[in-house]
Amino acid sequence: MRKMTEQHLINAFGGESQAHMRYLHFANQAEKEKFTNVARLFRAISHAEYVHAGDHYKALKHLNGGFVANSMAAFGPGDTLKNLQLAIDGETFEIEEMYPVYIEVAKFQEEKLAQRSFEWSYATEKLHKQLFEKAFDAVNAGNDVDLGPVHICEVCGYTLEGEAPDRCPVCGAVKEKFTAFR
Amino acid sequence: MRKMTEQHLINAFGGESQAHMRYLHFANQAEKEKFTNVARLFRAISHAEYVHAGDHYKALKHLNGGFVANSMAAFGPGDTLKNLQLAIDGETFEIEEMYPVYIEVAKFQEEKLAQRSFEWSYATEKLHKQLFEKAFDAVNAGNDVDLGPVHICEVCGYTLEGEAPDRCPVCGAVKEKFTAFR
Ligand SMILES: [Fe+2]
Ligand SMILES: [Fe+2]
Ligand SMILES: [Fe+2]
Ligand SMILES: [Fe+2]
Ligand SMILES: [Fe+2]
Ligand SMILES: [Fe+2]
Repeated sequence: MRKMTEQHLINAFGGESQAHMRYLHFANQAEKEKFTNVARLFRAISHAEYVHAGDHYKALKHLNGGFVANSMAAFGPGDTLKNLQLAIDGETFEIEEMYPVYIEVAKFQEEKLAQRSFEWSYATEKLHKQLFEKAFDAVNAGNDVDLGPVHICEVCGYTLEGEAPDRCPVCGAVKEKFTAFR
Repeated sequence: MRKMTEQHLINAFGGESQAHMRYLHFANQAEKEKFTNVARLFRAISHAEYVHAGDHYKALKHLNGGFVANSMAAFGPGDTLKNLQLAIDGETFEIEEMYPVYIEVAKFQEEKLAQRSFEWSYATEKLHKQLFEKAFDAVNAGNDVDLGPVHICEVCGYTLEGEAPDRCPVCGAVKEKFTAFR
């Protein structure tokens, strides 16, 4: 694998691991504030980031040993409203800069496996941002968010509110590959 | 907070998030190979890394916005024997280099909160290494590891095989603060 793309996969593994971690801690804070659905949303999306991290990690299985990831993360947790803003900011960075750049370079370097791993994540971060924005608006008005079941594709991390589709629209996985957060 | 120590906390948050993530995926692989206790050990220690990451993250709550973590991670997953070797290598780096350096700099810069967060993690990584070495020896002989209940302190990540102590020897937390992985 070309070294620039390889480093981007390493960085993306770090970024997804850190997003997964932040959302677990943000879920705890939401529970303390009795925002049960916001907590469930953080846990579901944390799981999607776990799938993303795993996809990048597996795309790097040719490596052997220690490498340094250079990965942006949002710091400064607070109450749930603040944490939702940090989550929106993190997803926005991934949507507007990180994944478009990583995809562009993977295409330029003709690294198909890396490109697919980045595209799978990219497809879903937009949905994460929308869900967090909906939760932000609810919490900003003093309410928990209205939230149906959230389903996560175990193959690509695709995230949707509602029932699982017959096929994942991003990776094509079958319905049985979805995990529900109800 | 002084900037060098602050950057080390950011890096340590990244490193712990990545260790947490790797051990979750290594647990899945161990389950596939029917090493049930090795899988449980990975899940328990993954949880300890989650506590470590949370401690570093909270020590940085004065920050606000995005910062880049520069964090070493071990790549190249394989079967469970290989994954245990990667886990041992990662813990060894933290014990022999990363945390001693971060603690030394925190002392030098008189950053007590950061120093405590690093020392809490450091105290436990040695136990992680020992537990992974025991698991490595078992798997290397073709067996699952003999493993009693594993207890994790929710305050500092202290990890022990056996029943929870009355007080955490690292941070002083009471018995009720321990989570069991049986
Ligand atoms: Fe993601
Ligand atoms: Fe996301
Ligand atoms: Fe999918
Ligand atoms: Fe740790
Ligand atoms: Fe550890
Ligand atoms: Fe403790």
